[in-house]
Amino acid sequence: MGELRIHSVLVTGANRGIGLGLVRHFLGMPNPPKWVFAACRDPKGQRAQELQNLASKHPNLVIIPLEVTDPASIKAAAARVGEHLGGSGLNLLINNAGMAKPKSLDNETLEDMTQVYTTNTIGPLLLGQAFLPLLKKAAQGSPSSALSCSKAAIINMSSSGGSIEEVYLWNYGQAVSYRCSKAALNMLTKCQSLGYRQHGVLCVALHPGWVQTDMGGAASQKPPVTVEESVGGMLKVLSSLSEKETGTFLDWEGEVVPW
Amino acid sequence: MGELRIHSVLVTGANRGIGLGLVRHFLGMPNPPKWVFAACRDPKGQRAQELQNLASKHPNLVIIPLEVTDPASIKAAAARVGEHLGGSGLNLLINNAGMAKPKSLDNETLEDMTQVYTTNTIGPLLLGQAFLPLLKKAAQGSPSSALSCSKAAIINMSSSGGSIEEVYLWNYGQAVSYRCSKAALNMLTKCQSLGYRQHGVLCVALHPGWVQTDMGGAASQKPPVTVEESVGGMLKVLSSLSEKETGTFLDWEGEVVPW
Ligand SMILES: NC(=O)c1ccc[n+]([C@@H]2O[C@H](COP(=O)([O-])OP(=O)(O)OC[C@H]3O[C@@H](n4cnc5c(N)ncnc54)[C@H](OP(=O)(O)O)[C@@H]3O)[C@@H](O)[C@H]2O)c1
Ligand SMILES: NC(=O)c1ccc[n+]([C@@H]2O[C@H](COP(=O)([O-])OP(=O)(O)OC[C@H]3O[C@@H](n4cnc5c(N)ncnc54)[C@H](OP(=O)(O)O)[C@@H]3O)[C@@H](O)[C@H]2O)c1
Repeated sequence: MGELRIHSVLVTGANRGIGLGLVRHFLGMPNPPKWVFAACRDPKGQRAQELQNLASKHPNLVIIPLEVTDPASIKAAAARVGEHLGGSGLNLLINNAGMAKPKSLDNETLEDMTQVYTTNTIGPLLLGQAFLPLLKKAAQGSPSSALSCSKAAIINMSSSGGSIEEVYLWNYGQAVSYRCSKAALNMLTKCQSLGYRQHGVLCVALHPGWVQTDMGGAASQKPPVTVEESVGGMLKVLSSLSEKETGTFLDWEGEVVPW
Repeated sequence: MGELRIHSVLVTGANRGIGLGLVRHFLGMPNPPKWVFAACRDPKGQRAQELQNLASKHPNLVIIPLEVTDPASIKAAAARVGEHLGGSGLNLLINNAGMAKPKSLDNETLEDMTQVYTTNTIGPLLLGQAFLPLLKKAAQGSPSSALSCSKAAIINMSSSGGSIEEVYLWNYGQAVSYRCSKAALNMLTKCQSLGYRQHGVLCVALHPGWVQTDMGGAASQKPPVTVEESVGGMLKVLSSLSEKETGTFLDWEGEVVPW
C-alpha cells in the first residue's frame, strides 16, 4: 500500500459533514496537495463559515461555488478549477455532496424521487463529464502507467444503504428515494470505470460507514463512526487502490460491499 | 411448480413489444383471467390498433389509459381498474412500460437521465403505491397463505443491462441513463418486497432476455429471443414463484441475475 501523493483534489459538499472532514484531512497531511478545491453551494454564506476560517489559514485551499443539480454551475466550477491549475490536471474528484429524505415506501413522491436522484446520481455523472479533461490531463502527466488515486480518480460517495443485497439500516429508515439513487450511483461508478479506464482514470464507490453528521444523525440512534475515523479509514483505502479495484464498491475499512 | 391461476392482471406499456405479447399470452391461456387490463398511453390512437383488435374479440380485455410518468394518470387508472373489479382485488401488476435512450457516457444529459428514471423507476414506484389497495384485497381474498403470483404480486420488468455485476451488452450500447434506472428499479423491487410482504404481495424483478422488439432491435445485431419465447418463459417463471423468491432478480429462464 503506497502513500497518497496528490497535487490536487476537489471535494463536493465540502462545507459540512464528511466533505468538510475530507478537506481538513487533506490540509493536515504531511505532504498536503498543492490545491484543495472545496466546493459548496454558498461560499460566502454562513453555511461555509468553517471553510472560510480554514481558507484564511491555508493558502492551498480554494473555495469553489457549486450546485451539483445545475449543469451550468458544474461547468463554471470546472472552468474555475482549470484556471487555478494552470496547465496541470486534477488528480482526484470526490463526489461527496448528497442528500436523503426520511420518507417511507408509502409516501415517496415523484418530486422527492427526482430531487434525490438529481443530487445523488445525475450530479456525479455531470461532474465526471465536466472534470474529465482535467482528470485526463493528470493521468497523462503521471509518471506511473498503472491506475491509482495518486494518478487520476473519481470517488463516488455511495452508501451501504444503496446495496440491493444488504438494504442496510432498513429498520432505521426506508428512504427509498435515497436507496434507489445510491444503487444507481453504484451503476454509474461501474459505467465510469469502464468508460474512463482508457483515459487512465480509476473509479470507485465508497461507503463511509454510519457517520456522525447531520445526515447520519437523522436516525434515532447515534451513529457509531466519527467523521475523523471515517475519513481516516477512507483515505487509507484510497491510497491502496490499483487497477483491480476500479469499478468496485468498498467501505471505509476496505471491505467489499455487495451490489 | 403450480399453474398460474389469476382472476385479474394489469400490464403497462401493453400496446407493443413485450407488453403486447404478455396480453396475448394471458388471453390465450386455457384458463384466461377474468380481467386483463392493458394499459397504454393512447387507447384510441393508431399506436393501440392491435389492442383494439384484440379487445373486439376478447370481452375480458379492458384497455386503460395510462402515462406512467404522470401521478394523476396513475391514480385515474387505479380508480378505473377498481371500478371494473367491483369488490375483488388485482392479482398481478406487471410494470412493463419502459424506455431507453441510445446515449454514451460522454453525452448523457440531465434531461435524458431524468426522463428515463421517471419512466423506468419512479413510474413503477407510484404504480405500486396506487394499486396496493387492490393487490392487498386480492391477497386477503386468496385461500392460500403463502406468497405467489396467483395470490398477489408486482412484477417489475428490469434488464440484465441494469445488473451492476454484469453490465450486459455494454459494447452494444452504453445507455447509462437506462442502466442506472434499471439498477434503481432492482433496488425498488427489493424495497417493495420488504415493505409489501406483510400485505401478502410478492415482488420480483425480471429480465425478459434480449428480445425482438423496437427497443431490443435498436442495437445493430438482431436480438436472439422472440417475444413469444420471452413471454412463455417468463410466465413459466411466474407460475413457479413462492415466498423464497420475493425480492429477487430472475431472467426469463428462471436463472438468478446478479445485482
Ligand atoms: N453520514 C452517514 O452516515 C453516511 C452514510 C452513508 C453515506 N453517506 C454519504 O456521504 C456523503 C456525505 O454525507 P454527510 O453525512 O456528510 O451529509 P451532510 O452532513 O448532510 O452533508 C451533505 C453535504 O452535501 C451538500 N449538498 C447537498 N445537496 C447539494 C447540492 N444540490 N449541491 C451542492 N452541495 C449539496 C451539503 O451542502 P449544504 O450545506 O449546502 O446543504 C453538504 O455539504 C453523502 O453522499 C451521503 O449520502 C453518509
Ligand atoms: N427488448 C429487450 O431486449 C429488453 C431487454 C431487457 C429489458 N427490457 C424491458 O422490457 C420492457 C418492455 O420492453 P420492450 O422491448 O417491449 O420495449 P418497446 O417495444 O420499446 O415498448 C415499450 C412500451 O412501453 C411503453 N411506454 C414507454 N414510456 C411510457 C410512458 N411514459 N407511459 C406509458 N407507457 C410507456 C410504450 O408505449 P408507447 O407505444 O406509447 O411508446 C410501449 O408500449 C421495458 O421495461 C424494457 O426496459 C426489454
